[in-house]
Amino acid sequence: MEWRREAQDGQGHGKEFVKILLQEYARMEAEDFKKFAKEMIEYITNYLENIRERRVLPTIEPGYMKPLLPSEAPRTAEKWEDIMSDIERVIMPGVTHWHSPKFHAYFPTAQSYPAIVADMLSGAIACIGFTWMASPACTELEVTMLDWLGQMLDLPKEFLACSGGKGGGVIQGTASEATLVALLGAKAKKIKEVKEQHPEWTDNEIIGKMMAYGSCQAHSSVERAGLLGGVKFRLLKVDSKNKLRGETLAEAIREDKEKGLIPFYVVVTLGTTSSCAFDRLDELGPVANRESVWLHVDAAYAGSAFICPEFRYLMKGIEKADSFNFNPHKWMLVNFDCSTMWFKDPTFVINTFNVDPLYLQHDMQGSAPDYRHWQIPLGRRFRALKLWFVLRIYGVENLQKYIRSHIAQAHEFEALVLSDSRFEIVAEVILGLVCFRLKASNDVNEALLKRINGAGNIHLVPSKINDVYFLRLAICSRMSESSDILYSWKEIKQRADEVLEEHSVSK
Amino acid sequence: MEWRREAQDGQGHGKEFVKILLQEYARMEAEDFKKFAKEMIEYITNYLENIRERRVLPTIEPGYMKPLLPSEAPRTAEKWEDIMSDIERVIMPGVTHWHSPKFHAYFPTAQSYPAIVADMLSGAIACIGFTWMASPACTELEVTMLDWLGQMLDLPKEFLACSGGKGGGVIQGTASEATLVALLGAKAKKIKEVKEQHPEWTDNEIIGKMMAYGSCQAHSSVERAGLLGGVKFRLLKVDSKNKLRGETLAEAIREDKEKGLIPFYVVVTLGTTSSCAFDRLDELGPVANRESVWLHVDAAYAGSAFICPEFRYLMKGIEKADSFNFNPHKWMLVNFDCSTMWFKDPTFVINTFNVDPLYLQHDMQGSAPDYRHWQIPLGRRFRALKLWFVLRIYGVENLQKYIRSHIAQAHEFEALVLSDSRFEIVAEVILGLVCFRLKASNDVNEALLKRINGAGNIHLVPSKINDVYFLRLAICSRMSESSDILYSWKEIKQRADEVLEEHSVSK
Repeated sequence: MEWRREAQDGQGHGKEFVKILLQEYARMEAEDFKKFAKEMIEYITNYLENIRERRVLPTIEPGYMKPLLPSEAPRTAEKWEDIMSDIERVIMPGVTHWHSPKFHAYFPTAQSYPAIVADMLSGAIACIGFTWMASPACTELEVTMLDWLGQMLDLPKEFLACSGGKGGGVIQGTASEATLVALLGAKAKKIKEVKEQHPEWTDNEIIGKMMAYGSCQAHSSVERAGLLGGVKFRLLKVDSKNKLRGETLAEAIREDKEKGLIPFYVVVTLGTTSSCAFDRLDELGPVANRESVWLHVDAAYAGSAFICPEFRYLMKGIEKADSFNFNPHKWMLVNFDCSTMWFKDPTFVINTFNVDPLYLQHDMQGSAPDYRHWQIPLGRRFRALKLWFVLRIYGVENLQKYIRSHIAQAHEFEALVLSDSRFEIVAEVILGLVCFRLKASNDVNEALLKRINGAGNIHLVPSKINDVYFLRLAICSRMSESSDILYSWKEIKQRADEVLEEHSVSK
Repeated sequence: MEWRREAQDGQGHGKEFVKILLQEYARMEAEDFKKFAKEMIEYITNYLENIRERRVLPTIEPGYMKPLLPSEAPRTAEKWEDIMSDIERVIMPGVTHWHSPKFHAYFPTAQSYPAIVADMLSGAIACIGFTWMASPACTELEVTMLDWLGQMLDLPKEFLACSGGKGGGVIQGTASEATLVALLGAKAKKIKEVKEQHPEWTDNEIIGKMMAYGSCQAHSSVERAGLLGGVKFRLLKVDSKNKLRGETLAEAIREDKEKGLIPFYVVVTLGTTSSCAFDRLDELGPVANRESVWLHVDAAYAGSAFICPEFRYLMKGIEKADSFNFNPHKWMLVNFDCSTMWFKDPTFVINTFNVDPLYLQHDMQGSAPDYRHWQIPLGRRFRALKLWFVLRIYGVENLQKYIRSHIAQAHEFEALVLSDSRFEIVAEVILGLVCFRLKASNDVNEALLKRINGAGNIHLVPSKINDVYFLRLAICSRMSESSDILYSWKEIKQRADEVLEEHSVSK
C-alpha cells in the first residue's frame, strides 16, 4: 500500500494521499435519527409505565448474552430498526429492573423523565467542561445549581459560591470520588501544616504516619478511599444504634497521637448503607475542629431528605464540616451520575490536582472555577442540565413531597412488619430503609432472602451487623405507592411461611 | 410540628404520621415527557445540522449567567415549554460549540446520533452495574463490546475476554482514570514482589522508593496520576521528534536503581496532546518487560485510528504492554464518557479495589466480572449501549472511512500551510492534528492565536515545546469537510495578515 508508506515517511500531504483517504462514508442522517429517537421515546415510556409487569430479577445465567450476539462487530451499517428489535431479545432478559416498585435492594438510584430529556441536550452539546473557557455555560450553570441545591438544604453560607467567599459546590461522579477527593485535599493540607513544624521530615515520612477515621459502618468506598490515597484508615466502633460518637473519635485520636501518628481526616456518615444510621455529627464536629482534622460528611443517600426542614435535625452540626456530599442521583430524581459536593475552602483540593499545561490555560482563569481542579478525571459532561431540568419540572415542594411519600411508605412497611410477631425491626426507621428479620437464626434469614430473590418477584439485599444477619427493604422506585408496599409485604410473608415450614419440618 | 418530634423519637410509624407524609405530588407524566422529548429531538437536530452558523466561541464574560437565572430554585413546578425557551436565552450564549467544524481546539470529543439514542435507553434502564447481579446485561454487553472493539484494533488475544484467559476490557470514565487505575495496579503488584524479597520492609518504605516514568510530552493527567497515587513520577526527555525512546527509559531506570529506588510503572503515550507524537513502544516494551515495570499504553486520541490497519504500525510492540487505553469518546463517535481499557491480567487492579461488603455480594461471583473492582468509582452507568449502537449503526467500514476522512483533512490543511511561505509545520502530521506557526517570534504567534480566538470564527489552542510556541489545529467535528478546512485556513491567513501588518508597523 503506497499511502501507508507515505504516512510512515511523514510525506502524507500529497494530493494522491488525500484523494485516497477522502472517501465518502455513510452516517446516520438527521431524519433517521428523528425516527429512531422517537421510536425510542415510545419504547422507554412503554417500558417505564409498565415496569411492574416485568419480573424484577432476570432468570438468566452468567454468559447468557454471548450466544445472542455476533462474535465480531458488523463490517457494514445496520438499520436502526434492527437495534430496536434487539432490545427485547438481547438486553431486557438480562436487566435487573432498578426502577420497578418491586426493587428494594441497595439504595435507590434516581431516574426521571426530565433528567432523560436533559441528558439528550447534554449529549447534543457534548462539551467537555474542564475549564470555564471550554464551555462557560457548563461551568456557570453548575455553580448556580449547586447554590440552588445548597440553599434547598439550608447548608451554611460558607459552602455556597453566592456567599462571595471561598466556598462552593461541584458535581462529582460518585460519592466514592467525593470521599477520595476530600481525603486528598485533607492530606495535602496536613502535609503542609506538619512541614511548617518539621521542615526536616519528608512527605513520605509524614504520609506514613497519617491516619484517617470513619465508622465501621461507613460505606465500603470510605475504606477504599484510604487504600487509593495510600494512607492508613481506622474504622471505629459505633454505639448501640450504629452511630459513631464524638468520644470514640476523641479517644482514637488521643491513642494515635501518643503513638506518634498524625490524624488528618474523618468521614462522618449520615445514613449508613447497612442500616441508615446517622453518626453524631454534632459531637464529632467539635472534636475534628479541635484536632485540626478535616471533617467530610458523606450523606450520599440521606442528603436528599434534608430538602425537607423536618429532617435537617439529622445534620445538626454541619457548620463544623469542611466538605459535604450527597447524591441527587440516589433519591432526588436526577439520573446517575450527579454526586454534589461542597467545600468551605477548595484551595487544597485545587492545589492537589493542579497540573496546568498551556493547552488548558485561558485568559479568564481565576474569574470562574476551572472544575478540572476539583475532581479526579479531567473531562466532564454537562451534568448541571439534569439538575436544572429536574428542579424546574418538579419544583422544591414536589420534591419534598416525593421524599416524604417514600418515608411514609417505609413506615407503612415497618408497621406491617411489626404487625407480624414472627418478625422484628432491627434498626430505627428514619428515612426510606427498613431493616428487619425473622426472629430466628441467621441461617433461617439467609434462607428467606434466598427464597425471596429466587422467586424474583421482588428484590432485596441483606446486611449484617454484629453478626446479626438481616434483610434491607429500601423504597426505591419513583413510581412506588402504598399498594406496592403491600405487594412486597405479602410476598415476604409467603416466602417466610415456606421457609419456616421447611425449617420446622427439617428439625 | 408534631410529626417532626415523632420522627426524632423514632416513633414515626403511627398512622397519623403516615397520613401526613403520604401527600400527592405532581410529577412529569408520560404524555408530557413524550411531547418534551420530541420537542428536544427537533431542537437538537436543528442545533446540530445548523451548527456552522453559530459563532464557535461565545462572547460573554465570566458571570454572564447569574443575572439570567433566579437566585433560588422554583418552589412549584414549571412548564417544560419554559425550559425549552430558556435554552437559547440562558444556555446557548455561553456554549463553546465543540461539534462545529470551526472548532479545532484540544482533541475531538465524540458525538453522534446513535450514541444519543443509546443514552436515552441507558437513562431509562438507569441501572447501576457495580456487580454482575445488579444488572447482568450491563456487564455482559460491556464484556462483548470490549471484545468487539479489541478485535477491531487487532489487539493481542491476551487482552480479550473471548480468548478465555485472564485478560479483558472495561469502560472507564476518562483516560485520566485509566492511567491512575493502571498505576495503582502496578503499585500493588510491585509492593508484593518487593515484599517477597524484603519481608522486613514496610509498605511505606517501599512506596517511598517507587518510581514511575512517562515522557515529558505526556498528558498532564499522567503526572497527576503520580500525585494522586502518592508516588514519584519522572518525566523523561524525548528525541527530536518528541518521542520517548527505549534507551532513555533504560538509562533512567539504571540511574534510579543505583540510587536504591524501585522502578514500577511506565506510561507510553501514543499520540501526545501537544503534537501527536508517538513514543517508541517497540523500544520501550522490551525495557519495561526486562525490568519488571508495568507498561501502560495511553492512546487516548490515537487509538481510534488503529481500527484502520494502515495505522497500526503506530502501535508496534503492543504485545509487550500490560494495559492499553483509548477513548472512543474522542474520535470514534461514542459520546463522552467511554474510555476503553484492556488488561492482560487485571488481578492486581481487582485486588487493590476489592472491598467487599455483604450487600454487594451475590451468588454468581467469579463467573463474570464485577466491574466495580476494575475502577475508582463504585457506581457505573450502562455505557456499553453507546458502543453497541454506534458500532452497529456505522459498521466498522464506515468508522474506518470516518477516521481516514479526518486524517485526509489534516493533510489538506497541512498542504495549505506549506503553500504559504510565512508559515511552517512544526511536527509531522500523522493523524488529525496539524501543529504550525508563523516563521516569527513566539510573541507574534501568541498574538495570532489571540486574534483568531478573539474573532471567534474558529477556535484553536496553542502549545509549546522546547520554548517554541505554536498553534494546534485538530480536525474535530464529525461534520467537518474539505470546505471547512478551507474556511479555517482563510480565517487564519486573514488574522496572520493583520498581525504581521501590526507587527511591522509597531517595529
